Amino acid sequence: MSLLIPVVLSGGSGTRLWPLSRRHRPKQFQKVIGTGTMLAQTLDRLSHLETATVIVANIGQVPHLLGELGVNQSAKIVAEPVGRNTAPAVAAAALLARPEDILVVMPADHHINRPTAFLESLERALAAAAAGHLVTFGVVPVKPETGYGYIVPKSGGGATALPIERFVEKPGREEATSLIASGALWNSGMFVFPVGILLEEMERLAPEVLTAVRAAVGSAEMTEFGSVLGPEFGAAPAVSIDTAVMEQTTRAVVVPLAAEWNDIGSWETLWELGDKDPDQNVIIGSAVAVDSRGSYIRSDGPLVAVAGIEDLVVVATPDAVLVTRRLAAQDVKKLVERLGEDYL
Amino acid sequence: MSLLIPVVLSGGSGTRLWPLSRRHRPKQFQKVIGTGTMLAQTLDRLSHLETATVIVANIGQVPHLLGELGVNQSAKIVAEPVGRNTAPAVAAAALLARPEDILVVMPADHHINRPTAFLESLERALAAAAAGHLVTFGVVPVKPETGYGYIVPKSGGGATALPIERFVEKPGREEATSLIASGALWNSGMFVFPVGILLEEMERLAPEVLTAVRAAVGSAEMTEFGSVLGPEFGAAPAVSIDTAVMEQTTRAVVVPLAAEWNDIGSWETLWELGDKDPDQNVIIGSAVAVDSRGSYIRSDGPLVAVAGIEDLVVVATPDAVLVTRRLAAQDVKKLVERLGEDYL
Repeated sequence: MSLLIPVVLSGGSGTRLWPLSRRHRPKQFQKVIGTGTMLAQTLDRLSHLETATVIVANIGQVPHLLGELGVNQSAKIVAEPVGRNTAPAVAAAALLARPEDILVVMPADHHINRPTAFLESLERALAAAAAGHLVTFGVVPVKPETGYGYIVPKSGGGATALPIERFVEKPGREEATSLIASGALWNSGMFVFPVGILLEEMERLAPEVLTAVRAAVGSAEMTEFGSVLGPEFGAAPAVSIDTAVMEQTTRAVVVPLAAEWNDIGSWETLWELGDKDPDQNVIIGSAVAVDSRGSYIRSDGPLVAVAGIEDLVVVATPDAVLVTRRLAAQDVKKLVERLGEDYL
Repeated sequence: MSLLIPVVLSGGSGTRLWPLSRRHRPKQFQKVIGTGTMLAQTLDRLSHLETATVIVANIGQVPHLLGELGVNQSAKIVAEPVGRNTAPAVAAAALLARPEDILVVMPADHHINRPTAFLESLERALAAAAAGHLVTFGVVPVKPETGYGYIVPKSGGGATALPIERFVEKPGREEATSLIASGALWNSGMFVFPVGILLEEMERLAPEVLTAVRAAVGSAEMTEFGSVLGPEFGAAPAVSIDTAVMEQTTRAVVVPLAAEWNDIGSWETLWELGDKDPDQNVIIGSAVAVDSRGSYIRSDGPLVAVAGIEDLVVVATPDAVLVTRRLAAQDVKKLVERLGEDYL
């Protein structure tokens, strides 16, 4: 009997939400939006699948993961000695499963607001996977976002699992608009993979990944929480599962997902999604605003008091404070590059 | 023999420099500008006077004062049970001295950048006081500042201690400009008073102040650090020494002071006085700026990282963070009124 195995990819150490998101406590461990951490929300989304969730995470995150999971959690952690993007992470989960199993893969740090829409799409994806397809979820776009990748389905495909014409990475606004008009979907980074077929395609399309990860799984150290992959993992090319497999294989299909979905890639995004006061401020935690507009103001540490500001992001944690323009995601990256190791 | 007694008024609990300046740790206890706290700088300025300095301060500040003064300091603290502005504070110092003594009175939290100019003016003031005058220092203005009071000297007075025509409180910019053109000086809040004459004039012009403070001095409790004035102090009208005496008496004279002087009444002021980087930012403490201009960025607590901001004030302490426009001193006041008691 084939098992459905939820696989959560927790490798990200995104700095775009600095200072909330930190190298060893990235955003999946934070209460960024909604109730609970992003990881907890992701695990909830998969909790109806009866197999224990596999969490693939960087070794440095394990202490936080264990704290987050608590004693009653049955999730198994697969710890990566170094981060190598998603293709090696997915390969590890696949090699630890049986060929007849099916992986339901999702990042630990994405936001989905309509769980029922997700479940409907998941049913369709499982059917397609059972028929031998490598399935990616394509979110129905709501605006010509330039920060995402797009998937263009082939015309004339089935209504529920569409063959893929091509992938487009981060188009300009004009191209994004015309992509949407032609039925393109946002590349969500969520997948359903029949293990046997995935490994076949990896063997063919990304053999260096598979060789290194196979060795790392072979020398993995078993622990109470799961396993620590061997040092051979570091020899795998750092490549995404999209680039390594999905963009190459003829077996890929895309299942549309009509949910509010977001990869929470910037403070601007959190301002967009947040509850706003009459002055269009999003205020979270210990914060007070006077005569201010259009700002995202948040503290998980000291009291933050702002006056007379407009369109800013002000985020405080106990050891660091960010002040930047709301529409300047790039500035955060620049800043983080300037900071000392202690603050990453 | 008459003694010169330095009197430092430390009653202020200014919130205009919140969150650095706090109710029980106002700006005189902070390293706001230059080396050492403002109080230490004030005490230094008076250290050549051989009598022990009298510090009149709110009872709540005594622990910080003692910490600041250390074991070797000979200053005596006169603790006020409640703040009642400067007339009662000066009256207390006068009543604790002898009629033949001379008080050199100055606020604990003003900035003076040319100590030699101050000493020269002090010599002139002492001479005028010895001749029976109540002396105020008038700073030679460098711009039509609207936040200060002005003193208009009578024309035809002596070159060094001028009789006073009138006081003007916080004029508009146009009036300030014409005041400066006519030789007006900034009212500095620093004084030299012959004790006997001061008390005579207070008896005549502000008898309620003197009655209440005399009772409070009578019932004062002696302590290791000095004295705590009795509860009668609270019955004194809260009035400034300018309003109660200087603006009424015919014995007042003003001695010009040609020094860089500032009452450090706003973050804007600290930006003006501070050392600027090529982008006109003043950056103090644990702070990093990228693509930012014209801002005052300071941390005595968490790391502050700013990007893409302009003309802002960002000030962090371990428990509170302020973000406001640099040219909006009033906003800070509004904010502080909105904050809970815990943060004052």
